[in-house]
Amino acid sequence: MLLGSIEAGGTKFVCAVGDEKYVTKAHIQYPTTQPEETIQKAIDFFKQFPDLKAISVASFGPIEIRQQAEMYGYITDTPKKGWSHTDFLGQLKAAFKLPIYWTTDVNGSAFGEYTLAQLAGQPIEALTYYTIGTGVGAGTVLGGNFIGTLGHPEVGHVRLKRHPDDLNFKGICPYHGDCLEGLVAGPTFEARTGKRGQDIPLSDHVWDIMAYYVAQAALQTTLHIRPQKIVFGGGVVSEAFLKKVRQQFAVLMNDYQAVGTLEEYITMPLAQNNGSATVGNFALAYRTLN
Amino acid sequence: MLLGSIEAGGTKFVCAVGDEKYVTKAHIQYPTTQPEETIQKAIDFFKQFPDLKAISVASFGPIEIRQQAEMYGYITDTPKKGWSHTDFLGQLKAAFKLPIYWTTDVNGSAFGEYTLAQLAGQPIEALTYYTIGTGVGAGTVLGGNFIGTLGHPEVGHVRLKRHPDDLNFKGICPYHGDCLEGLVAGPTFEARTGKRGQDIPLSDHVWDIMAYYVAQAALQTTLHIRPQKIVFGGGVVSEAFLKKVRQQFAVLMNDYQAVGTLEEYITMPLAQNNGSATVGNFALAYRTLN
Repeated sequence: MLLGSIEAGGTKFVCAVGDEKYVTKAHIQYPTTQPEETIQKAIDFFKQFPDLKAISVASFGPIEIRQQAEMYGYITDTPKKGWSHTDFLGQLKAAFKLPIYWTTDVNGSAFGEYTLAQLAGQPIEALTYYTIGTGVGAGTVLGGNFIGTLGHPEVGHVRLKRHPDDLNFKGICPYHGDCLEGLVAGPTFEARTGKRGQDIPLSDHVWDIMAYYVAQAALQTTLHIRPQKIVFGGGVVSEAFLKKVRQQFAVLMNDYQAVGTLEEYITMPLAQNNGSATVGNFALAYRTLN
Repeated sequence: MLLGSIEAGGTKFVCAVGDEKYVTKAHIQYPTTQPEETIQKAIDFFKQFPDLKAISVASFGPIEIRQQAEMYGYITDTPKKGWSHTDFLGQLKAAFKLPIYWTTDVNGSAFGEYTLAQLAGQPIEALTYYTIGTGVGAGTVLGGNFIGTLGHPEVGHVRLKRHPDDLNFKGICPYHGDCLEGLVAGPTFEARTGKRGQDIPLSDHVWDIMAYYVAQAALQTTLHIRPQKIVFGGGVVSEAFLKKVRQQFAVLMNDYQAVGTLEEYITMPLAQNNGSATVGNFALAYRTLN
């Protein structure tokens, strides 16, 4: 059986076909340009596989995911130039008479990690996936479904207790200044230090400040949702950074609630090379058939 | 049909029997003293109703709600004197051969408000209930179930962006200092001003500070979970206070996400006289029979 995956990012698209064991058989990736031509490239790729049974899309956003909404399947008000009010799902449906699942990029990744945990023989009921990169967002799988009734959660915009050594930094979110995204998204490194994150050693204090905020995000997720695992992906994240996050999380939690071993609770993705969303899409596409 | 409700608070117990329309037929309330005698009074009350079909308990905590846990049905490590490691459910089960549902006080209230919305002909998929009183907590119903796989969420202990006019207040939480509970629980009024909340007019600036923090809690719930309604109960809350909360919420959200009319989104309980948990218990007891 062949299943299709589109991981639609603001910078690049990754399209893949895989089998019902979620093993990739073919894939392409290309830069995100204008909507119609970018989506058409995905269509052309999938047209090579006439046996394709279903497709799933994990898209950058904000997107409309409420099935009863008039704009269901659209990218809505995005800062990404040319993409506001793009009927992404509509263009795909015009090209394929197949079931097509539609969700957010972070939901796709969360479902991928949820699926990989199952495949590894360690099934979990509830998992949250955070991406910390150009932007910050999270998706949560709870008992096989995504959290978010009014629409997708936008965890990136919660407020945090400010680090005492970071009080003068105003944050970079155009909507909220010093929300989570405004304090820890990749571009905050340049805004704070004039240097890019990849050029700043982990021994630099700015990484402790980052870890303090990311630990608060993990604490919020724990105290609001109590998942069994919180996975962090995205360009800012590394195992060495998560070590700092776990330390700060332990201080913030102060033994108030047991979440198990922190090394197993706050983790890097199981999928290699940012592949969480592709696995998630295969699994979601497969599920649309059942 | 008769259903039983125990709302077990740290200060008082409210026991009630009601019918399958969730109308109370009889009730008692009495102060919370030592565990065995306090629970026995509930047992004696219910023994008067031999037709009772099921009971539900909404208890102060922390409590163990994971059914597979060894301590399921216990109050665990509570600061309430004499109550740590109380086998609450066990004492009830020894007295009644009936289905007994066991959940937290805020879950009971959340389910009551969820049920009342249904009865009012306005069913909702997801609702969060906050109590802001001696302590701060919240429960969320999502598609008929409670959120919290590892155990009950403890939203009261998230951290918040501090109000610029409140930076010197250290907060009163013995575990975390200036977490949500440490900043807005009822006793913070005396800690900040030397006066009790009920003696401070709403025009006092301390209420704006409180509203700023409670609005951040509502924002966190919105961005993590996206329920359709957030209900606030507890001694600190009034409609006039929620008006301030809505104003601050609107500023914090800055039109980033649509949650509908704020007067319908952030509300007082539908149940009168703190009756949410009793309705919730009746509905949960009823559900255990089906």
